[in-house]
Amino acid sequence: MRRIHILDTSLRDGEQAPGASMTSPEKLEVARALARLGVDIIEAGFPAASPDDHAAVAQIAAEVGREPLRGRPDVQPPVIQALARAHEGDIDAAWSAIKGAARPRIHTFLATSDLHLEHKLRMTRDEVIAKVGAMVRHAKRLCDAVEFSPEDAGRSDPAFLHQVLAVAIEAGATVLNIPDTVGYTMPDEFGALIAGIVENVPGAREVVISVHCHDDLGLAVANSLAGLRAGAGQAEVTVNGIGERAGNASLEELVMLLRTREPVLGLTTGIDTTQLLSVSKVISRATSYPVPPNKAVVGGNAFAHESGIHQDGVLKHQRTYEIMKPEDVGASQTKLVLGKHSGKHAFAERLAVLGVALEGEALVRAFGRFKVLADRKRAVHDADLVALAAGERAPAPDLYVLEDLQVACGTAGLATATVRLRDPEGGQRVQAAVGTGPVDATYKAIQAIVLTPVELLEFNVNAVTEGIDALGEVSVRVREGDERATHGSGADTDIVVASAKAYLAALNHVIARRPAAQNVEGAA
Amino acid sequence: MRRIHILDTSLRDGEQAPGASMTSPEKLEVARALARLGVDIIEAGFPAASPDDHAAVAQIAAEVGREPLRGRPDVQPPVIQALARAHEGDIDAAWSAIKGAARPRIHTFLATSDLHLEHKLRMTRDEVIAKVGAMVRHAKRLCDAVEFSPEDAGRSDPAFLHQVLAVAIEAGATVLNIPDTVGYTMPDEFGALIAGIVENVPGAREVVISVHCHDDLGLAVANSLAGLRAGAGQAEVTVNGIGERAGNASLEELVMLLRTREPVLGLTTGIDTTQLLSVSKVISRATSYPVPPNKAVVGGNAFAHESGIHQDGVLKHQRTYEIMKPEDVGASQTKLVLGKHSGKHAFAERLAVLGVALEGEALVRAFGRFKVLADRKRAVHDADLVALAAGERAPAPDLYVLEDLQVACGTAGLATATVRLRDPEGGQRVQAAVGTGPVDATYKAIQAIVLTPVELLEFNVNAVTEGIDALGEVSVRVREGDERATHGSGADTDIVVASAKAYLAALNHVIARRPAAQNVEGAA
Repeated sequence: MRRIHILDTSLRDGEQAPGASMTSPEKLEVARALARLGVDIIEAGFPAASPDDHAAVAQIAAEVGREPLRGRPDVQPPVIQALARAHEGDIDAAWSAIKGAARPRIHTFLATSDLHLEHKLRMTRDEVIAKVGAMVRHAKRLCDAVEFSPEDAGRSDPAFLHQVLAVAIEAGATVLNIPDTVGYTMPDEFGALIAGIVENVPGAREVVISVHCHDDLGLAVANSLAGLRAGAGQAEVTVNGIGERAGNASLEELVMLLRTREPVLGLTTGIDTTQLLSVSKVISRATSYPVPPNKAVVGGNAFAHESGIHQDGVLKHQRTYEIMKPEDVGASQTKLVLGKHSGKHAFAERLAVLGVALEGEALVRAFGRFKVLADRKRAVHDADLVALAAGERAPAPDLYVLEDLQVACGTAGLATATVRLRDPEGGQRVQAAVGTGPVDATYKAIQAIVLTPVELLEFNVNAVTEGIDALGEVSVRVREGDERATHGSGADTDIVVASAKAYLAALNHVIARRPAAQNVEGAA
Repeated sequence: MRRIHILDTSLRDGEQAPGASMTSPEKLEVARALARLGVDIIEAGFPAASPDDHAAVAQIAAEVGREPLRGRPDVQPPVIQALARAHEGDIDAAWSAIKGAARPRIHTFLATSDLHLEHKLRMTRDEVIAKVGAMVRHAKRLCDAVEFSPEDAGRSDPAFLHQVLAVAIEAGATVLNIPDTVGYTMPDEFGALIAGIVENVPGAREVVISVHCHDDLGLAVANSLAGLRAGAGQAEVTVNGIGERAGNASLEELVMLLRTREPVLGLTTGIDTTQLLSVSKVISRATSYPVPPNKAVVGGNAFAHESGIHQDGVLKHQRTYEIMKPEDVGASQTKLVLGKHSGKHAFAERLAVLGVALEGEALVRAFGRFKVLADRKRAVHDADLVALAAGERAPAPDLYVLEDLQVACGTAGLATATVRLRDPEGGQRVQAAVGTGPVDATYKAIQAIVLTPVELLEFNVNAVTEGIDALGEVSVRVREGDERATHGSGADTDIVVASAKAYLAALNHVIARRPAAQNVEGAA
């Protein structure tokens, strides 16, 4: 049995997906969930990108990377890794962000394909070699553990790639991560690439080789597998397969593949697979990226059988149509858990199982809202609990607060909304507006007060999966000018109220970010 | 160059996904889109399942399988294939449904893994061999082209599998389809399985070997590729990878993989890749299955670049981070196309490009609604057009019609809805109800008139991707008792009105289906 290290990069490569950017509290929650899942290394971010990114990585290093899990003193905390371009400034920023972790690791990269050298870097091969040596040495002076990635390795000339990797090892790299940056290779090619590195690069057997595959042609998991079988000891993956473009290899698919085919493969991981479904939900919520029903392992249908032929087979013998058991991935935990007589302790415990850690004031507020909901609904489901806690988990700054909303709409048109907001100075502001529908009218009324013109990129109502009276959650993604997209979410049994909360949360984020964003430009 | 045949089974295996069941008009529209895409074989359904399924397959055979595409007299119509269990009755039903096609094909199957023999079929190996011979011969007497599938081939004893396949060839099978029914195999195993069949089964080189892979472990595309490289000549796939559980190999991923890596693979298809995005949308809408943004090839982010590093690279040279061009898959067609001055012809043409064929009365009605929308909105986008046409494409029976809806809601609670419906007898019915939110209140008021208690399984608002004033589309999935789920959709600029339309469409389907469902049980 060979133990494979799982590196989760949902917080770095995953966050690079358009509009998936997370707030610092969301990132911390994701990191906690990943630690509970048992990932070996958390790539927590790219500290040089902005002071916010730096602060989020530092917080994860201190709070998740320092102590063992509660109740698991035997398990050491995950390695906390940060990304840095091959610049001294980036590497210094990465180090200052992660140095509070018990086991920090710096990750630096430089492209090695001729395409990238010529068109992006505008560097010669000799310049690349010199730079890789210098930057890995610089990182090594700060931190014992250093990962180096030759970007676009999948399209690089193998001889040059081997030369660069040998330089990185000599300079002190402890992990060589081989990315198929554009998702171009096929399993036999990627396996051969890894085997060639193990075979030909001096010192390669003394360091960890890592695979990092993208899914542009639907081969990310298969390529990762081929690389591991060819000798790699670490896989870089993301939960739900989020990431640039078509995303990265999906953590849950690769882990369940290794587990299901362990007798043939002889590869194991340290992942607690019963946490997969709850971590998938944490990430989906933090990024506002839905998990499609036909997603392998964690999709709503992964264990559902619609056709009579299959249902009959499963009833006769589970294994006729199932190769994994729902309980293996945490999918069969009872769904109906709490009612109006449940206490705060049971409420907090259940939230923890669902991957939502609330404490103190936030817990008291969420519990209060739970009691109101439990009075209104016959049964409070897990989905309701998570939606309800969402507002407390990643609170938007309370610049503008929704105090009142009143809407009239219908087939006659002229949907009208009246909103009352408390503004940042504590004043009461009221506006009414007419729109094409109740949400449009509400958003126009809010804009008449907040005056922060944004483009609405996306408007999602999360599935009310458990019946007509469940809590609805709305998430929106907005953009101000050319800034990065910002998202906000809100939950309420009234879909229009939830929409108003989501929009206001997004606007508050946009406003709160403004001075910080200006600082970044000032510092760069 | 070896030409691979693409068999699309979105209408059969895809429709087996929970809640993805389509109406006959939706199926016909999907089949037309698949023909336009250039698939070689359309697996149109499972005629023995119900009279409705039979009728839908027969209609596709007559309308899509008979004539070449409009404007493409040189291209022969696709093969129309229907599924049948290894029973004479099923095979006869399949034949009677497809015989109107120019090129019909019967597909029959029987499991060959010991697990299925023992626990599901309760048959011996000898009984399986006898039955396969008899049933393929029976199909062959009706139809020249016969496909046989050994179900769960991926977990079958190769020696027994070879024996069964030899019998099928001798009995007249022209295609041997090898399914990895539970998505269990790995690429090297599946490739070896296909190679072993080509090598060892007498007559295998004279028939077409086909691959049919499921994605439970994320390997469907990689396994399909391995099978094609090992000698298979047909791939069974679905658009958007829909299907049982985690779904089938995705058509768009496999096709773009073969195309992108053609110089290495030497495999081509007849697919017009510029239709991929529009066909993906047709299927997504017909099944109410969303396409996640990080879906390869057809996801919203497939060609999006968020991080500054990648954006910079793409600006400098497109190929640094893109291995396919957006226009290859039809993703870069101008999005803003029509305004208030556009005529009916331009409107119909644009809908056709988007994969929506409307004619006669339906076109006139949709155009009328377009004019109303164009007056309300600055710009009408493709997404608006498709949403707007949705109601005309798969009309629910007009049993109950929404005439008026009036809603008041907000933070004060007591959301109230008043609806006026026209009932099937032409009478006017009015009811008011209070709910936890505007949608709940509306649904309660509708139920007070329609009195058809259903469970609301899912409630989705399709993304308003193009700004705050776009048309919203709501789709719902409901279930009455233990019946199959039914879906309905509705579009309006008012999200509550769209919700009412969607719910009413679903209820009308449920009511309309009742007598038909009883007939099926009577006939079985």
